[in-house]
Amino acid sequence: MSEDGAVRRYVLTMSCPDRTGIVATVSGFLAAHGGWVIEAAQHGDLTTGRFFQRVEVLADSLPFGPEELSQRFEVVARELQLDWRLSDTDVRKRVVLLASREDHCLADLLHRWRGGELRCEIPLVVSNHPDLRPLAEWHGVEFSHVPIAADRKEHSFTQLGDVIAEASPDVIVLARYMQVLPEQLCDEYAGRILNIHHSFLPSFAGAKPYHQAFARGVKLIGATCHYVTAELDAGPIIEQDLSRIDHADTVDDLVRIGRDVERAVLARGLRWHLEDRVLVNGSRTVVFA
Amino acid sequence: MSEDGAVRRYVLTMSCPDRTGIVATVSGFLAAHGGWVIEAAQHGDLTTGRFFQRVEVLADSLPFGPEELSQRFEVVARELQLDWRLSDTDVRKRVVLLASREDHCLADLLHRWRGGELRCEIPLVVSNHPDLRPLAEWHGVEFSHVPIAADRKEHSFTQLGDVIAEASPDVIVLARYMQVLPEQLCDEYAGRILNIHHSFLPSFAGAKPYHQAFARGVKLIGATCHYVTAELDAGPIIEQDLSRIDHADTVDDLVRIGRDVERAVLARGLRWHLEDRVLVNGSRTVVFA
Amino acid sequence: MSEDGAVRRYVLTMSCPDRTGIVATVSGFLAAHGGWVIEAAQHGDLTTGRFFQRVEVLADSLPFGPEELSQRFEVVARELQLDWRLSDTDVRKRVVLLASREDHCLADLLHRWRGGELRCEIPLVVSNHPDLRPLAEWHGVEFSHVPIAADRKEHSFTQLGDVIAEASPDVIVLARYMQVLPEQLCDEYAGRILNIHHSFLPSFAGAKPYHQAFARGVKLIGATCHYVTAELDAGPIIEQDLSRIDHADTVDDLVRIGRDVERAVLARGLRWHLEDRVLVNGSRTVVFA
Amino acid sequence: MSEDGAVRRYVLTMSCPDRTGIVATVSGFLAAHGGWVIEAAQHGDLTTGRFFQRVEVLADSLPFGPEELSQRFEVVARELQLDWRLSDTDVRKRVVLLASREDHCLADLLHRWRGGELRCEIPLVVSNHPDLRPLAEWHGVEFSHVPIAADRKEHSFTQLGDVIAEASPDVIVLARYMQVLPEQLCDEYAGRILNIHHSFLPSFAGAKPYHQAFARGVKLIGATCHYVTAELDAGPIIEQDLSRIDHADTVDDLVRIGRDVERAVLARGLRWHLEDRVLVNGSRTVVFA
Repeated sequence: MSEDGAVRRYVLTMSCPDRTGIVATVSGFLAAHGGWVIEAAQHGDLTTGRFFQRVEVLADSLPFGPEELSQRFEVVARELQLDWRLSDTDVRKRVVLLASREDHCLADLLHRWRGGELRCEIPLVVSNHPDLRPLAEWHGVEFSHVPIAADRKEHSFTQLGDVIAEASPDVIVLARYMQVLPEQLCDEYAGRILNIHHSFLPSFAGAKPYHQAFARGVKLIGATCHYVTAELDAGPIIEQDLSRIDHADTVDDLVRIGRDVERAVLARGLRWHLEDRVLVNGSRTVVFA
Repeated sequence: MSEDGAVRRYVLTMSCPDRTGIVATVSGFLAAHGGWVIEAAQHGDLTTGRFFQRVEVLADSLPFGPEELSQRFEVVARELQLDWRLSDTDVRKRVVLLASREDHCLADLLHRWRGGELRCEIPLVVSNHPDLRPLAEWHGVEFSHVPIAADRKEHSFTQLGDVIAEASPDVIVLARYMQVLPEQLCDEYAGRILNIHHSFLPSFAGAKPYHQAFARGVKLIGATCHYVTAELDAGPIIEQDLSRIDHADTVDDLVRIGRDVERAVLARGLRWHLEDRVLVNGSRTVVFA
Repeated sequence: MSEDGAVRRYVLTMSCPDRTGIVATVSGFLAAHGGWVIEAAQHGDLTTGRFFQRVEVLADSLPFGPEELSQRFEVVARELQLDWRLSDTDVRKRVVLLASREDHCLADLLHRWRGGELRCEIPLVVSNHPDLRPLAEWHGVEFSHVPIAADRKEHSFTQLGDVIAEASPDVIVLARYMQVLPEQLCDEYAGRILNIHHSFLPSFAGAKPYHQAFARGVKLIGATCHYVTAELDAGPIIEQDLSRIDHADTVDDLVRIGRDVERAVLARGLRWHLEDRVLVNGSRTVVFA
Repeated sequence: MSEDGAVRRYVLTMSCPDRTGIVATVSGFLAAHGGWVIEAAQHGDLTTGRFFQRVEVLADSLPFGPEELSQRFEVVARELQLDWRLSDTDVRKRVVLLASREDHCLADLLHRWRGGELRCEIPLVVSNHPDLRPLAEWHGVEFSHVPIAADRKEHSFTQLGDVIAEASPDVIVLARYMQVLPEQLCDEYAGRILNIHHSFLPSFAGAKPYHQAFARGVKLIGATCHYVTAELDAGPIIEQDLSRIDHADTVDDLVRIGRDVERAVLARGLRWHLEDRVLVNGSRTVVFA
């Protein structure tokens, strides 16, 4: 058991061209070593012919550690042409949070993390404004202020990249970070940057989505958690949700109502990512929630 | 009381430039004649300075009928620069339903109408295909088959316009009618044509929205009931709703899941329109639901 | 392929005491014969130590038919102490629908069935009132009127049991059937009778749930689809949902709003049951939706 | 304008036996003095014959202050037999928060308050445990630890009553306070104590509602914000909501999922109460949301 009382598990995630016997081979491999599977899910995508699987095994049920598990599984993986990854729940992912001035998403993530709901390490909060320092520091998290100068964007983003890199993140979360990341950073951390966009994408991509939603007169407003790619607000969607509004709601009301949706959607998306429940499938995602 | 046991009411809907004393004047006028208000709602739009109101009065509480009520109210209306309308619940609106081959919305509306949930007359169902005739006729509704020939669209739509006009509709409902109405019909029945679009607009306007939604990998699919204007899928939205899907759902699943959302959204939108609960406010709507 | 174009599949559902290697054994058995698994789900209940699994295999991928599959799988099943069942999607389940006077659930199920959304046979509709005969017969389904005489209940229910038995049902659906079935019928068709109760159970069990909900002042009303047991409204819950109401809604509004929830919940519950997605786990259910 | 930029308003809430002309009289009174109504809502309860109204007027539009408004309105009120109350948005309500060890509701309310979403003063947090002191104090709120000794409950609650009374609260919020308040306190602050119960009442009243919900096998779990009365979990309901769960969710998962529903429901309920949007109607509430 780890320090928080959670039982140690290995999480295998994999994808490969679909064919007969994948589950049998993988589960047979685990069973042959006494592996106790406590959760498993699989999905065959009929449109692409690709197969996806996630298996969670009790660490103690296997006679070897994660390195030997990896070596042995590699044999199976080669046979099945698997893209695969092994996570060890005792090795917490390192998450760097980026925010700007709005604190609702940041406060929510820090609160959940502090209460043990999000199993990860949060070594660093970075912001282009100084405002959220007290919030980060009260939670015992280092805060770094990296301003983004409009006339020296390249320089600013190089600095940002350095600050982030020093924290060796497994995951970067844009918790209402109001700057567009440069393509280079998007590529460097591809599949590992989560953003929360305050609209139900693909509607109202870009700036001021609540103003756009108000102008169009929609009857629900939403939020979208997605992986960041170089194309703005177009990466694979992890999670979405909405909340009902009506004609009496002003843009300010939309902002207020939307905050609750944003933080709920981002928290779910991040949780699933941390638990290796999200597998990218082209421009879409498979979520074994 | 009318034949279905519902108490007769007059519904006054109005809009005007906002100012002090509108509610006082309108309610004072009704109170002076002993009018018993059983429901009232109002809304001042801060962005446009326009005021909207809906008042429902018991017919029997007033000493005069709808004609005299109209004449007397016109005096008030002129003073307040009201755009207004009077509906008498004993005069049911005439609804013409247009459908194509998919029957879920049509069947749903006919079922609700037959059970008394939608208070209206339905003199006619029109379709560009013959398939839904038995469904319409079982409900005792006349069915007219007006094919839309690809090479003679103008002629076909003229014929459609004639068939519709003969039924003297107050409202036209596109219950998954898969043809784009010509501008002339849109204008002729402006504010009186309701469409159900099978996406959460403004996402996925146009053709094959479920295919678009699948390709984008959204996590909920929706439907939108809106007034038809000449610009496709861009009219004022009356009602929307969504349903959750996941990665295992194929386009066929989306179609199936979406049907339930479509019919619920259309039924609510039509019900509100029939009860004079929807007031158009530029490109948006005020819905006193 | 069957007549409706759906590919033939075998569905294996099973439960047993949880242990290592169940998935490996079952999937290994299928893989050994070339079985192409198109959907699989499993669940280990930590509180009871019981394991549940559902596997859907393409019929054509196996070199033998359902009888031989059963015989061969029986060997595996004995080893794992499986409670198991095999369904063949080409053998449609026979569903008998019971209703009273309210037609919204019955109409909804018949509509979905006619459109191919519910894969089953519906040989018979039974009611204690004659009103719904035209609806059943328009859908081509036999209708049987079996009155339940208050002073001769035992006799009436014997007659009902006979009428039902003659239709050899796999499933009985109480689609707002307003009589309490006698214990003997509940036992005879245990795990095969679905009811829709018009409240969010366990709140408001018994009579007049909408009146109860109104009196308590709840802010949402719900419906519950559950298996019928001898204890009224206490059987394992298959599906539930709710809809928002407010202070302006009368009991009649609750009845109207509730109808939509009832029919949606019942349709989902029945669909899942027909597809062998519901496994009873004591007083609870496992739903591989 | 007050310090946070919100325009000063007076909120009149009232109820009385329903009759003709109430709205006319009230709105006529306001209009006669140039009162600009920015929001108004009314409701006639057909089952009790009682009428409820809420009117929000711009302070600056009236030629007198709140005292004279009260004096003048009292004349109207007497004529209509009104139960009424006047709130001045410049006079913030004083809210005392009670919590135990769980911090999610407390943290949420403090966060919303700090961000200006809840317009009130929070002079005090009281808890029967010392754990939440840092959270309260970081938000600049005084924290008082009042243990409830099992063997000296009467004494403990007297002490609690004293501590609360010293803060002169307008509202008391039980933000997951895990003690049952004595009848005397319930009576003293009748209609002014809000509780969040972690179930969809009336289901699962009393202790360990998530365990009860798990045992019953419900498919959604909820939370209820209600006024506290002497009868446990039976007071008028202000707001409720639910979240979907499935068979794989353990009691711990229910606790985690439920936290989000609890805090959202409590925040909405409190916000509405602070804005005088909730009127008690016997065992039910009218919520002009």
